[in-house]
Amino acid sequence: MTTTAQQRSADLDTRLRAHPDRFRVLTGDRPTGRLHLGHYFGTLHNRVRLQRLGVPLHLVIADYQVITDRDTAEHLDEHVEELLLDYYAAGLDPERCTPFTHSAVPALNQLMLPLLSLVSLPELHRNPTVKDEITHSRQASVNGLMLTYPVHQAADILFCGANVVPVGQDQLPHLELTRTLARRFNDRYAPVFTEPEALLSPAPLVLGTDGTKMSKSRGNAIHLADTPDRTAQLLRGATTDSQRHITYEPDTRPEIASLLLLASLCTGQDPHRIAEDLGSKGAAALKNTVTDAVNTHLAPLRARRAELAQDRTHLRRLLREGNARARDHAENTLDQVRTAMGTRY
Amino acid sequence: MTTTAQQRSADLDTRLRAHPDRFRVLTGDRPTGRLHLGHYFGTLHNRVRLQRLGVPLHLVIADYQVITDRDTAEHLDEHVEELLLDYYAAGLDPERCTPFTHSAVPALNQLMLPLLSLVSLPELHRNPTVKDEITHSRQASVNGLMLTYPVHQAADILFCGANVVPVGQDQLPHLELTRTLARRFNDRYAPVFTEPEALLSPAPLVLGTDGTKMSKSRGNAIHLADTPDRTAQLLRGATTDSQRHITYEPDTRPEIASLLLLASLCTGQDPHRIAEDLGSKGAAALKNTVTDAVNTHLAPLRARRAELAQDRTHLRRLLREGNARARDHAENTLDQVRTAMGTRY
Repeated sequence: MTTTAQQRSADLDTRLRAHPDRFRVLTGDRPTGRLHLGHYFGTLHNRVRLQRLGVPLHLVIADYQVITDRDTAEHLDEHVEELLLDYYAAGLDPERCTPFTHSAVPALNQLMLPLLSLVSLPELHRNPTVKDEITHSRQASVNGLMLTYPVHQAADILFCGANVVPVGQDQLPHLELTRTLARRFNDRYAPVFTEPEALLSPAPLVLGTDGTKMSKSRGNAIHLADTPDRTAQLLRGATTDSQRHITYEPDTRPEIASLLLLASLCTGQDPHRIAEDLGSKGAAALKNTVTDAVNTHLAPLRARRAELAQDRTHLRRLLREGNARARDHAENTLDQVRTAMGTRY
Repeated sequence: MTTTAQQRSADLDTRLRAHPDRFRVLTGDRPTGRLHLGHYFGTLHNRVRLQRLGVPLHLVIADYQVITDRDTAEHLDEHVEELLLDYYAAGLDPERCTPFTHSAVPALNQLMLPLLSLVSLPELHRNPTVKDEITHSRQASVNGLMLTYPVHQAADILFCGANVVPVGQDQLPHLELTRTLARRFNDRYAPVFTEPEALLSPAPLVLGTDGTKMSKSRGNAIHLADTPDRTAQLLRGATTDSQRHITYEPDTRPEIASLLLLASLCTGQDPHRIAEDLGSKGAAALKNTVTDAVNTHLAPLRARRAELAQDRTHLRRLLREGNARARDHAENTLDQVRTAMGTRY
């Protein structure tokens, strides 16, 4: 299945580049705080690429999907602002993308109800992410929103007519559910929804400074908003190995390789070449090289971010405009759904 | 628990009569077709009583709760109209009640999401109606909307600030869940919701013409909209027993007692007295008496219904006005919810 999914995704990418005007993308994030280099090279970069191709982007800020996390829920407005700052700093164009929050688009949320009627309990429980949560939490701590969130996600995608969703491998089952629900609705009522296609992320995995997956909660992340000094400090503390000679060997020297990859992603240079240039200068020299590369690459982005952060009123206005566009879109879709279901009285 | 619930309900009824202006009622039906005498004496009568006391009524027409039933879903607009005709015919005043359909009130449906985050999976599965459905259907045929419908019901009640919900014994667990969710939301965020109280129906159980519970699907129901001739025909076919002498003995002669009860409810006379008057005239005479009583009682109601049915445009306008009022109410509540949750950006 994986190979097929990858092949399909590659084909989709070709079609996207040839006819960007025929596509619409839904993507987004949970507002849990500032984005880091893992997000940047993992998803943001690709979004900017799609935007440059001319594909319209809908960006869901999934504020209803973090409300069970008390720490996050208490600072939702800050998290939403930071996310927007990272989006725009990374190059997403306020004129060409539509950011919106779940909480501001009632007609999208309503769509979840007819979709819920088309999914069985075993299907809900079978979703790998949900299953994982149920296995790892005490069952009593899994709530109704967690069980049904793949259906909420389907509503995100279907309300705006997105036909492309950038995903990681682990999210393929979610997208498959969305396709199933679209098909079931269309078969049962009338052809309202488009079945979206998965665009698998081609992005390399950027590791954190401790050699494990970059993640805010592990304290191993370099954030877009970090200062150059903070970035240098974090990279100085990065895990390396005891060999002085620098080589690019992802399998045997993952920490060194990850640092080289980061420098490569920031400079566009081949990681082997960067390693050769460093030769026997050791880990400290490598870290200096990476720090320079990251700080140089992020400098314009950070400048843009700092400027945007000056005018929070403007930032909020951009979100309100996005929410208004998403509401129009959702109400229009909901009207079609009402016609299809025979609930226009 | 039952006695306590009954006592509480009786106390509530006293307070309702003393201060009707302090209360607001949420009640409603699934739009599955015309209402019958079981609905009329079971719920409609009590709603009209509450309205006459001066209590505002919100009437949810739960169109999203029947969409999994294909037969019903294909005639939803007709079922909704028939329900409205029965409401207004029975004496509900368009000026003083707010009928609305789920499908027309997105902000109400959105409320379901934060409420879903406050209920655990075991709580959802523990609901007796849901449990019943899971036990009696194949698990695979239970859908996501069925599992979560008590939460949708909580949203119905909470969005309009209803503090009274007329219920049968079997619905007490649902109301308890609504109270729990209101409390959890208020504790976690801010005091937005009122915990509603249960008003247990004091109505006697009207049996169908075969001596079992009156129900459309059993073909034993006399509908409000039936003609006098059809009513007579249905009652002529009613099950009785072989004793010629008519007596009111619900325990030993349930079919005869049910017919007497029906005559009693329609005329206001004591059922024992009606039985005495009939004496040994036999079941045919009883049926004539009941037919006269039902047709006489329903005559003005049926006339009103026929008149209302002439002007479907007006009927639809009344629903649209109700939906508009419900939307205003729901959007206002959702605004308070957004403020409480910190999701106003």
